[in-house]
This record gives sequence, C-alpha cells and structure tokens, in this order.
Amino acid sequence: MKFHAEAIDLGTRAPTVILNAADAEELGVNPVDRIQIHWNGETHIGIVEVTDEIVAEGTLGVTRRLGYIDGDVEVTHAPKPGSVHYIRKKLDGIELEADEFETIVRDIDDNRLSDIELTAYVTGTYSEGLSFEETKYLTEAMTDVGDVIEWNDDVIADKHSIGGVAGNRVTPIVVPIVAAAGVTIPKTSSRAVTSPAGTADTMEVFCDVAFDADEIKSIVGRTNGCLVWGGAVNISPVDDKIIRAENPLSLDPPGQVIASVLSKKQSAGSTHVVIDVPYGEGAKVESLASARELATDFKQVGDHLGMAIECTITRGEQPIGHGIGPILEARDVLDVLNGGGPTSLRLKSLRLADILLECCDVDADAREILDSGRALDKFREIVAAQNGDPDVTVEDLVPGEETLDVRADRDGVVTHLDNRLISDIARRAGAPTDNGAGIELDVAIGEPVSADDRLFTVHAEQASKLADAESLVDKSEPIRVRDRGEALVERL
Amino acid sequence: MKFHAEAIDLGTRAPTVILNAADAEELGVNPVDRIQIHWNGETHIGIVEVTDEIVAEGTLGVTRRLGYIDGDVEVTHAPKPGSVHYIRKKLDGIELEADEFETIVRDIDDNRLSDIELTAYVTGTYSEGLSFEETKYLTEAMTDVGDVIEWNDDVIADKHSIGGVAGNRVTPIVVPIVAAAGVTIPKTSSRAVTSPAGTADTMEVFCDVAFDADEIKSIVGRTNGCLVWGGAVNISPVDDKIIRAENPLSLDPPGQVIASVLSKKQSAGSTHVVIDVPYGEGAKVESLASARELATDFKQVGDHLGMAIECTITRGEQPIGHGIGPILEARDVLDVLNGGGPTSLRLKSLRLADILLECCDVDADAREILDSGRALDKFREIVAAQNGDPDVTVEDLVPGEETLDVRADRDGVVTHLDNRLISDIARRAGAPTDNGAGIELDVAIGEPVSADDRLFTVHAEQASKLADAESLVDKSEPIRVRDRGEALVERL
Repeated sequence: MKFHAEAIDLGTRAPTVILNAADAEELGVNPVDRIQIHWNGETHIGIVEVTDEIVAEGTLGVTRRLGYIDGDVEVTHAPKPGSVHYIRKKLDGIELEADEFETIVRDIDDNRLSDIELTAYVTGTYSEGLSFEETKYLTEAMTDVGDVIEWNDDVIADKHSIGGVAGNRVTPIVVPIVAAAGVTIPKTSSRAVTSPAGTADTMEVFCDVAFDADEIKSIVGRTNGCLVWGGAVNISPVDDKIIRAENPLSLDPPGQVIASVLSKKQSAGSTHVVIDVPYGEGAKVESLASARELATDFKQVGDHLGMAIECTITRGEQPIGHGIGPILEARDVLDVLNGGGPTSLRLKSLRLADILLECCDVDADAREILDSGRALDKFREIVAAQNGDPDVTVEDLVPGEETLDVRADRDGVVTHLDNRLISDIARRAGAPTDNGAGIELDVAIGEPVSADDRLFTVHAEQASKLADAESLVDKSEPIRVRDRGEALVERL
Repeated sequence: MKFHAEAIDLGTRAPTVILNAADAEELGVNPVDRIQIHWNGETHIGIVEVTDEIVAEGTLGVTRRLGYIDGDVEVTHAPKPGSVHYIRKKLDGIELEADEFETIVRDIDDNRLSDIELTAYVTGTYSEGLSFEETKYLTEAMTDVGDVIEWNDDVIADKHSIGGVAGNRVTPIVVPIVAAAGVTIPKTSSRAVTSPAGTADTMEVFCDVAFDADEIKSIVGRTNGCLVWGGAVNISPVDDKIIRAENPLSLDPPGQVIASVLSKKQSAGSTHVVIDVPYGEGAKVESLASARELATDFKQVGDHLGMAIECTITRGEQPIGHGIGPILEARDVLDVLNGGGPTSLRLKSLRLADILLECCDVDADAREILDSGRALDKFREIVAAQNGDPDVTVEDLVPGEETLDVRADRDGVVTHLDNRLISDIARRAGAPTDNGAGIELDVAIGEPVSADDRLFTVHAEQASKLADAESLVDKSEPIRVRDRGEALVERL
C-alpha cells in the first residue's frame, strides 16, 4: 500500500509509525504490529500506532527515530522479530539458548521491541527465573553489545553494590584507598534513578563525572583511579533499556541483576571485583538466604567469565552514614577521608577496601592508608584530574538552607529506620536534582533517645519542595521510636 | 511544581502527559511514573512520558484523554495505583483475592495502567496461571464492569467458540435453528482481530450488525434471535483492553479466556451456553488433554455463576467449510441454510444446535428444522430485522474478482492444511476489510488429488493485494500433498 511519509516530532524508544485508523484497517494491521517501509531502495521496520486525527488517510507519520524517511513509500506487513518467539518460549517455561539471548539482547539494543514485548521479556525472566546457564548466556550477550575498554595491567580492581540502602557512599572512600595502594581502579558509577543520589551524583559535587573511554584512560594513567559516570561510556547499553521496564513494577530478577553487573564489569575490563550484597528489611534483598544465593551465583558466573569475584553480605536494614543526598553524602565522604565521619561509613569502607586489596593479592592495610592521609591525597588527585578543586573542604559543601527538624515524640529506643521512606522524603525535598537537598540523620537503630531529641533534619533548596517532603513526613513514620518496654515486642 | 498545560493531539489509551526532560528531572519523575495534576479544583492522574523537543520547559503536554485540562496547573507526585502492587504479587506467585482482581479490572477499565503494567498483568497470569478460585474472582470482576442486559425469559441460549479455526462459520446457522425452535438466542459476536473474518464481519455481508442494547431487545422481541456485533454494546469492555497486550505475543492464559467468555455471557444475560473448544495442530488449543481441562474449568466456573454450560471438543486441525473471508463464508452459510453447502459446516452446525437445544431442555430436532426450511426462514427474518435484504441469494454474494488458483504439483493425498497460513493468506488478500477477499478451498485432509488439480483459489478485490497474498503462497506450503507412500511417514 502506498503512503506519503511525514515527520512527526515525537521521540519514542521504538521505531513507531503512526497510521490513520482507516488506513490501518485497510492494510489489516493492529497497534503494535510491525510494517516494512520500502523507501529509496531501503527497507525499514516500523511499529504501528493508530490514530483518528493526528495523521490523515494516506499519510504515514514517522516519529523521530525514523524521521529521515520522507516522501513516497510502499508499506507491507513485516514478520515479528525473532526475539518475540524466544520471549514467548521463556514465558512457556522453556530455557533459552545462547543464540536466543543474543537475538533478544540485540533487538533490545536496537530498540526493535515494543514496551509490551520488552515487559514480557522482563516479567518472563522474573516469573520463570534464569538458570545458571541462562545467566551466563545473558551476561555474555550483554557484554558483546556496546564498547569494551582494554587495559595493559593484569589487575583491574572494581567494586559494586546491588543497592537499596540509603547513604552508603563507600565508593569515593574505597577507590582512593585502593588506588593509593598502587592498584588500578577505574570506577564507573550510576546516577540515581529512583534513589536520592548515585555515586555519580555525589562525585559531581566535587568535579566533572562525564568522560569518554579515552579520557578515562588518561585520568587513570595519571592517578591509578577515577570516579566517573558510567552513562557517558557506551558499555553494556542494553541495561538501561531493560531497567525501564523493570522500574514500574520494581522487578529485579536475580539472574538479570547478575548479567547487568557482570557484563558492565567485563566490558569495563575489570578483573578483580568486590560485590556488596546488602540485605535486610527494605533493602533490595530481604533475607540472608537470598543474599547468600545471589552471592554464590555472582561468584560462579564471574568464574566462568574469568573474573575474580568476592562478595560481601552486609546488613542493609538502615542507612549507612549520616547524610542522604549528593552534598550531604559528599560531606560524609570528606569527613571519613579526613579521619572522622560516621563510624558506619568508615568501618564499611575499610572492610570493603581490605577485601578488594586481598582479592587483588596486594599486601596493604586500608586503615593505615586512610589514617595516614594517603587516601585523602589520592582523592584530591582524582578530583583534580576530573577538573575539580582539590582543596575543597567540608565547609565549602553547603546543604540546602530550607530545613525541617524532625524530633522524637517520647523517650525510648530507635527500633526501625525505613530506607525506602527516608529515600522518598529526600527525593521530595529535591535530591538528587537540587544537590543540597536531602536528609541528615542523627540516630541509628538501637540508640536511646529522649522526647524532643532531633531524629533527622530535612534539607531543601526550595521552600515548596520542603513542604512536599514535610507532607510525607507528617503521614508516615520513617524512624520508629518505642518505649524500652515495647522495643522488642511491639503491639500493632 | 507549576506548569502551563497545553493539548497535544495524540491519542493514547493511558492518560499520558508529556514533560520536557529538564522538567522531569527537576520534578524527579521518570517515564511511566504517575503525577497528580491539580487544576480547577480537581485532581487528575497522568502517566509521564519524557521528550526533549515536543514540549518546552514549563509546559505540560496533555494528550487527548486529558485534553480538557488547559492553562495553569500544579503538578505533584502521585502514588502508584493499587493494582500495581497486586500485579507484582501475582508475578511473585501469590494467589490474588476477589477485591484485588476487582481493583485490577477497574484500573484496566479506566485506562489507569501503562502498557508495561498491563503486560506484566497478562504475562503474570500466563506464567503463573490462574487457580479455579482466581478464575472465578476474575470472571465476577469483569462482569461487574460495563453494562448488563436483562431478559424476561428463563432460558437465554448462547454459543461461543474459542476460535483459531479458519472458516468455521457455524453461528449464523445455529442461531436461526435454535430461534426457530422457540428459544431466545440474542447472539453477539466479534469482528476479526487477527483472523480473516469474525461472525460480525460475515453477518455484515447480509445486514447491519451494530445495535445498542435497546435495539437488540427489539430485534429479539420480534424474531427470538439476533446476530449482532458485540462491540457496539458495552458488555465486559475490559476484555478488548486485555487482548491488546495478549496479541503481540499470542498469549491466551486459559483462566483469562474463561473469564473473558463467561463475563460476556453473564453480562449478556445468557443462561444456557454451548462452548466449542476446537483442538489440534495450529488451533488455539493443541492437545485433547488441554481441551478437556479447559472445558472442565468452563463448566465449573459457569456452575458457580449459575449458568448451564455445555462444552464441545471438536477437531480443529483444518478449516470448517469451503470459504474463508466475509463473503465467501456468507455463501457457505446460505448454501447450508438452503440444504446444501459444505458437509463439514452442515454437520458441525447441526451437532452444536442439537446440544444447545438439549441443554435448554427443548425437544426439537436440528436436522428437521434445517431441512424443512424453517431455519432459512428464521435467518431471513433476522436479516430483515437487522435492516438487510431477506431475499438475498448466493448469486448476489460476489467474491473478489482478482483470483489466483493454486494447484497440486503431483498426484497424492492431502496430509495437512495449515489454519494459520491459510488465514494469513486470506488477510493479505484483503480480508476482512475487502469483504470479497479470501480463500475458497477445494480439498480437505485425507482427500486424494491428481497433479494440477486445484487446491484452493485466492480471491481479492485489488490486484496489489492479490500479489501480496501470492508472495506468501509462493514461499509457503499452506496445503501439503504427499505421495501415498509417504503420506503416513514423511521424510524431512
């Protein structure tokens, strides 16, 4: 059937084309069906959406991804892409083979799948699970897509946390310790998606974080380490597309998590990696048993790929550090590097650094490196190499000046800190976009408090956002204080 | 955060709003997140999509479903709808309760779910299955949404086929037989979605099919029966929305099929229903065991709802009747009503009519009603009541004049007719939109043929569509002819 193609200024992930309802009926296609567009001697695939008004009969609306198509085209039916059959197979509970994962990953990378098909893939891997073999195939397929960074060193150290714990900004402390011990550690991190800050957001308080692969190599060549944003490097780009379908339902299939993390590490050229699996109420992994299982699978898939993986299983039922939000976390980091700071953040960072050094077979003591000031010096070197001010002090890092103090309404003991609620409040206050916004915690689980003691302070840069955060504080109980007598046995 | 709302001429099922990427970041929302739009003293929910260009910063693009919102609005975060939690629960393998299905069905009906969430629901019910209790709850929830038609009779007969077999146009034969026996049978049918014709498409060859509930009552009051399109009546409207997410992956969770069919029958006021479950290679249900299981569940859920259900399990590995496509099927129907026609269509229609009459406890003989001409008279009455020409003859029904004869390339036996390929060829030829397009079959499985005997004829109304159909015929083997010697044991 012949059409006249016209550009529609609409950005979609999939190569969407828009047909008038009458034309769609005439052509015999339904929404989400695929068509072949023959134009200029080439054939392109479009995914159909149907409209009554936005395009007239005879017109094929091409959205931005196909926007170069213009003028007269011939349209015919197109077969479904191969991955649709494999997704269906997965939903039928049948294990997929290596080449089938390759096809799916390639189709996701090329945005050839509609939201419906992509979601069916994600829920299929969630409901049916991924076997050890499947996780391996998926990891390899995800590694094969996108760029790979190559290094000359035999040992490239790396770390990762599977997340879900507020604060927990150990990376900007671990990296300078390890780099100061002479180990190459080119760390790429993410920005926040649903949390109040990612490591990249916190580091951006100090310096630039967006560098391409060559720039990263140059920084690491000078300092042994870096603390940059992974999104500026095209390694394992499929991951972000899969996350889009996972987020609305908070789905995190364990096999997918392993494939996402290890494909990124493999593409980044990492050889020795510590993976932190925090567990506990409100964290991504709730039970010790699930954390152990995930850690075991991480090690085994890593083995298969030729990476040395160490996993740490840590308590994740409350935030690590005092600050939550880019600037507040940056202050904690600088405090710890200066020899002070929150104990929880200092101790966790030291332990992770020691395990990573041991995994790399390097005889060095993290505490000695930190307390001697060598980690701070290394951090300043890295900040300078990333175009930041190496002489930055805690006083330079000013949190949002709109504040709300939240206080205990009775004497008692802190029995519960809700990671998710605390993150939500910090986001409402403006984190991570307003980098001074967030929460400063005064207490931890098990601490005694008196009535009217401050539990935490909300910081915001804008009064309206502080009000938005306050409305959530008012209707929830992010920090629970109970009388000593009912601390252990709580009555509902 | 304050915005200026502007209409975007884009039709979406969900209440989509479009934000500039910078505003989305500022507000802290991701694609598919929900926002509350405070406008004019009311609060509306929008699902976020993010663009770089289509709307400027400070503008909230409202698509057609929210198009009435205009001017200054205040935007805040909105919680996820309740059903998202229940969908997640289903994906976690936990059975859902009655009120949870009610919430999901209501949210689907109100278009409150994004494609991602709706697909997660469909794949969840597919992967995890629905228990008998769950199927019951879902059926009740789907019945509660939309209109209900009430009748004064104690017996309201109905029939349904779960489909997947080409041709198979038994309904316009069964309904007049049953109506002629004095039983009320107000039959609503669907149009084709992925097939070359639905019963509504075939009936439209004879008369109008779009009537509202009052008009249906008036037609049935005069004739005892009707043959109308269900889409014009608002019964169980959720079904079409669920089908949208099922089609791209051809998912048909059995519990969902039962709920879809029985909620429609319940809403239509039906009390006695025959459900035909065709099974066989290429049909929707492939094995006899699955067909029996589905039939048993249909009966039990029907029992619970107070309906008398009879199920027939029929062979579905090849088309029923000669014609495929609206006019070609209409010719078969009229031939059978005239006492002739394809044997397969005549015998299946008689058997279904007898079972339905017996189910309604009516002592009548379908063959006698058909052969006496009373069924044909009743059919003409119904056609007249639906504004058609009661004196229509087979000669008036002219199939598409662009034709292609497909012939056997050797002597042998027909071993296989591919329902799906035959449907695809008929659709490429233009069915159901071009109502004269389709396929006329000359052979059935097991029949001996000689080289150059005609196997089938493709009819089209447009030469370009015939060419499109021919290209599929050329590269496939919709009808397999094998030498007698290899008919039983075929060598690959």
